[in-house]
Amino acid sequence: MIVVMQSGASDEQIQTVIDRLVALGFDIHRSTGVECTVLGCVGVKAGFDHRIIEVLDGVAEVHRITSPYKLVGRKFRPEGTIIRVGDMTIGGDEVPIIAGPCSVESREQLFTIAEKVAEAGGRGLRGGAFKPRSSPYSFQGLGEEGLKLLREACDHFGLVAVSEVMAESQIPLMLEYVDILQVGARNMQNFNLLRELGKVRKPILLKRGIAATIEELLLSAEYIMAGGNYEVILCERGIRTFESYTRNTFDVSAIPVVKKLSHLPIIGDPSHGTGLRDKVPPMARAAVAAGADGVIMEVHHDPDRALSDGAQSIYPQTFATLMDELRLIATAVKRNIAPARVNA
Amino acid sequence: MIVVMQSGASDEQIQTVIDRLVALGFDIHRSTGVECTVLGCVGVKAGFDHRIIEVLDGVAEVHRITSPYKLVGRKFRPEGTIIRVGDMTIGGDEVPIIAGPCSVESREQLFTIAEKVAEAGGRGLRGGAFKPRSSPYSFQGLGEEGLKLLREACDHFGLVAVSEVMAESQIPLMLEYVDILQVGARNMQNFNLLRELGKVRKPILLKRGIAATIEELLLSAEYIMAGGNYEVILCERGIRTFESYTRNTFDVSAIPVVKKLSHLPIIGDPSHGTGLRDKVPPMARAAVAAGADGVIMEVHHDPDRALSDGAQSIYPQTFATLMDELRLIATAVKRNIAPARVNA
Amino acid sequence: MIVVMQSGASDEQIQTVIDRLVALGFDIHRSTGVECTVLGCVGVKAGFDHRIIEVLDGVAEVHRITSPYKLVGRKFRPEGTIIRVGDMTIGGDEVPIIAGPCSVESREQLFTIAEKVAEAGGRGLRGGAFKPRSSPYSFQGLGEEGLKLLREACDHFGLVAVSEVMAESQIPLMLEYVDILQVGARNMQNFNLLRELGKVRKPILLKRGIAATIEELLLSAEYIMAGGNYEVILCERGIRTFESYTRNTFDVSAIPVVKKLSHLPIIGDPSHGTGLRDKVPPMARAAVAAGADGVIMEVHHDPDRALSDGAQSIYPQTFATLMDELRLIATAVKRNIAPARVNA
Amino acid sequence: MIVVMQSGASDEQIQTVIDRLVALGFDIHRSTGVECTVLGCVGVKAGFDHRIIEVLDGVAEVHRITSPYKLVGRKFRPEGTIIRVGDMTIGGDEVPIIAGPCSVESREQLFTIAEKVAEAGGRGLRGGAFKPRSSPYSFQGLGEEGLKLLREACDHFGLVAVSEVMAESQIPLMLEYVDILQVGARNMQNFNLLRELGKVRKPILLKRGIAATIEELLLSAEYIMAGGNYEVILCERGIRTFESYTRNTFDVSAIPVVKKLSHLPIIGDPSHGTGLRDKVPPMARAAVAAGADGVIMEVHHDPDRALSDGAQSIYPQTFATLMDELRLIATAVKRNIAPARVNA
Repeated sequence: MIVVMQSGASDEQIQTVIDRLVALGFDIHRSTGVECTVLGCVGVKAGFDHRIIEVLDGVAEVHRITSPYKLVGRKFRPEGTIIRVGDMTIGGDEVPIIAGPCSVESREQLFTIAEKVAEAGGRGLRGGAFKPRSSPYSFQGLGEEGLKLLREACDHFGLVAVSEVMAESQIPLMLEYVDILQVGARNMQNFNLLRELGKVRKPILLKRGIAATIEELLLSAEYIMAGGNYEVILCERGIRTFESYTRNTFDVSAIPVVKKLSHLPIIGDPSHGTGLRDKVPPMARAAVAAGADGVIMEVHHDPDRALSDGAQSIYPQTFATLMDELRLIATAVKRNIAPARVNA
Repeated sequence: MIVVMQSGASDEQIQTVIDRLVALGFDIHRSTGVECTVLGCVGVKAGFDHRIIEVLDGVAEVHRITSPYKLVGRKFRPEGTIIRVGDMTIGGDEVPIIAGPCSVESREQLFTIAEKVAEAGGRGLRGGAFKPRSSPYSFQGLGEEGLKLLREACDHFGLVAVSEVMAESQIPLMLEYVDILQVGARNMQNFNLLRELGKVRKPILLKRGIAATIEELLLSAEYIMAGGNYEVILCERGIRTFESYTRNTFDVSAIPVVKKLSHLPIIGDPSHGTGLRDKVPPMARAAVAAGADGVIMEVHHDPDRALSDGAQSIYPQTFATLMDELRLIATAVKRNIAPARVNA
Repeated sequence: MIVVMQSGASDEQIQTVIDRLVALGFDIHRSTGVECTVLGCVGVKAGFDHRIIEVLDGVAEVHRITSPYKLVGRKFRPEGTIIRVGDMTIGGDEVPIIAGPCSVESREQLFTIAEKVAEAGGRGLRGGAFKPRSSPYSFQGLGEEGLKLLREACDHFGLVAVSEVMAESQIPLMLEYVDILQVGARNMQNFNLLRELGKVRKPILLKRGIAATIEELLLSAEYIMAGGNYEVILCERGIRTFESYTRNTFDVSAIPVVKKLSHLPIIGDPSHGTGLRDKVPPMARAAVAAGADGVIMEVHHDPDRALSDGAQSIYPQTFATLMDELRLIATAVKRNIAPARVNA
Repeated sequence: MIVVMQSGASDEQIQTVIDRLVALGFDIHRSTGVECTVLGCVGVKAGFDHRIIEVLDGVAEVHRITSPYKLVGRKFRPEGTIIRVGDMTIGGDEVPIIAGPCSVESREQLFTIAEKVAEAGGRGLRGGAFKPRSSPYSFQGLGEEGLKLLREACDHFGLVAVSEVMAESQIPLMLEYVDILQVGARNMQNFNLLRELGKVRKPILLKRGIAATIEELLLSAEYIMAGGNYEVILCERGIRTFESYTRNTFDVSAIPVVKKLSHLPIIGDPSHGTGLRDKVPPMARAAVAAGADGVIMEVHHDPDRALSDGAQSIYPQTFATLMDELRLIATAVKRNIAPARVNA
């Protein structure tokens, strides 16, 4: 941590700041210049709130020089993390595509969609059982029944099961049925939930909150890793900006940024990222072109009748065409996407 | 709901949209103009996702014309809601000031601060027992012990107790000790928690999320009211914008906007709204001047040693001076603030 | 335009609104429902400020139902606009890549870079002669000398010349030397400048302001087209959001959104969009994958010594590799990029 | 400037960075720690782009430790700047209120409004003659005729004349008629215009751009001051955020922030800050309560028929009532506002 004193700071002010820093356990290196005095502080603890120093008299600025996270940092594992779920890998050469409905609605719905996902080369099946909805009057999900159907469909078509966990109390149930536990954008800073997921031994798909900086996303992943679960997959799914044409602004640049800062894999979610069906294919392509380790998206065979998020779900036929485009783009970045299957 | 068709939409496209709307239970009034066809739709259900229509072929735009909330709307109670807690009222002529430390740290700390709050004319005492922290390595609160201390201090000094509830499981415990249950910004869309709070018979202080629109804040209040608890106090506490000098941008204009849209009281939190101690007094004054029904802020007698948020806590002496300024401003808007007590 | 009255609006209020609308030249269709009265208004003039009606007593909401622009709208030219400059086309199957230094610094600098751009298959050469800088103490460009060098380099290597015009007074000078006149993000709403560019007979490259909505970008293009110049190329170059890791958030989704709303071509500028050299290749790839009609980026052979924007300029070797990747991605979206030349 | 090397940076990388810094004219103080090496750099020039160092191999972070502006900084004039125009002062104990129509429309309109402004205790009259409009089809102002009327009305009622200058070429004309030249939000970074205004000997009212940080606002003021004109009045008028209920988010906290960072006066513009008539009084009160050195707002006697911005103009009667409230609030912050006049 570096503390820059104001140019007119008095000796007394400087000494008060130094005393305070020493009391907090720092070693101090003082450097006196023409313009101002700078204090280099060694020994900052993780979680230290630097504003405590910032508000002292005579202090101009405080700069943290070490990142606030340790385990998620790229240097913790410079070669990158590859997460394996069955024969699917995330973070390596493969770029797995995960698709499916927003909510599991019925056996017929789910199997119809799962078949199409598998045929086109999708590796994972997504489907919500517990739905967080901004209106108290909307469909809230099938609950455990939905999870059972998801498990069955995945076993039948050889897909990895991904579903959202909304509360600590749901974790045991999720573990019974699901391969990857998703944390939704609204729960990215539900620290109690993150702490519990640190004890789990299955991969966590952690979505970026719509107002979360990349650093905050990484800090939330740190919560999970600090608990002992190192299998965290990050997910960019759009941030809130002044632009209102799209539901969110899908921050594609977060993908290469995260790849530089962290060893964890990051995937993109163009469905939530844009909120509009016809924007999903171009933004899925953009994500892969930018280096995403995977894509998760909403597919529905009858989106006009979907109980949730139909407007951002693409048709199976669109999905199949998109998969072909994504395969070409993956080769441009020296990655690969599973081929379409003749019979799913 | 009004559906505007594209100017070149075919008769077939228009008919398909009409059929879909009728199937969804709408009555349709069709109006054909030179530029385009407009469909007026009567009978929209709360929670209806209008994007389902937006993505149909030939549709240019869809406008919702009824607000998505009912119970929180101003017309539900045009005269405004006044919430009483003991002899304190929120939403009427009185502008109660609630103050206290970010976290309850010890008996001595809390009683020292509570005394100063009461002496200066504060009506409520805030203090966190369970702290959500963005770093897994930070102080996490005293838990039930903190709640007990809060109750004792409030009883001793005649103050109303306000503390944050972070999970459904904490509700019974909170009810034992606390007069007003606060929902933090990060939990504004924790719908499971909101639903449970709808069953509670104590007032809820609902903070606006840092990326939440005013409409979303009102929808979250609707969740609580839909459950039967009509005593909801809204709180503006800063939104995330591109400006990074302040921790958040304290959206003072949300106060008059909410007063127009809803009958619920709204208070301001300039401590979290700015994140900087020296910005708390000007922004507390701004909130009252703009018509806030109360102010909540962080006060600490030794903020440099506070275990959390010290940088945004003001000193008791600053608080006392500020209270005098706020009393003058309250009179300018024909409201009143409790006088300072000679002996707390 | 549709005016929705409040549910409790009185007959008198409704009549006042109708009278006001008629006085403004509208034809009114009144529709009275259980919940509220809705007034359909035909005959809105472009530029009408609907807030004039919004603030009348008893009005709940006003919705504009026709887009505020005419000439830039997709329906004005459903087949899309293809702009030709020499043998280069923008808006058709070709995806031209424009590259070069931020500022023209010297003959040697410009020719070195231009040669590399041409060799790798670039079609246009960018280079600033007049530099808008946020600090008054920074390098401000070579002026006309810079334009002359740009013209020479373009003629020598067979490239299209692109440079920024900062004021109306510079237009005649620019026309002498430049093929495409660029309007910078800060001037996107310099309406005097836009109006003058409407009289020009060369293509205008109009960059999106960092706080401009897509609709505002289209309205600015409308200014130019309304003056008679139909050759407008739009450019996404990053918007300002709360995320501060990247200089701006490169809004890739603006590309497909503009393609739907307008017939004008849109290109991407990943250099300004991210502000960081190592993020330029992934975001250039993302832009082409998302359907951009071209890419403009900063290339410098010695960026550490560049007089401006060196930090976001890529090396010629990186540019050559990137061009190969972009060619592959272009095929995935059924477009093409000019091949590398053996001898530039 | 402080350069923090990555924790694993090699000696060679560190040496390369040092060599580069020395070549750029810096003196370097190297400090080697357990975690990383830190380079303190003395001698940074104004306008230096620190990203040049940021992109070098092995560099983790670069922190600028001196502010990028000199003349606008609080320490340049710790006692604060008081600007005098006739007998009106801005920046001292007086809080002058400037009001008037968005555009000068006619002699009768302007004199009617000016009389009401003067009667209520307003000190300045605003009125646009050249209007920047986002649509090419809107009213564009009366031009010089408008300026003449403004001068006449100000002379007649003893008010200070404020009007917007949109281009360098308009400066001589403005100087003939106007007391304070306003730079609109869209021109805040029109550096050519700012440079020319540095040569003027009348006060400049510089509005914050809707996407401008406070630091950028101060840098734009630095442009004017660097040219020799030290009489700059800053103005907060709303920033663009995700919240769309109000046209902009009026950043009241910018007022105390600017007061701390700079010696220049800052006023608030709640009309543009909110865009809604009924939000102007509460936000004007908030601005004064937060310590604004003045308020500028739009007043119109017949806003429904105003040629521009009628929706955000308040009625003269509302203005008179507001002035009484503002006077009370001014006393709460130990400032004063001119009394109402019996006969204007």
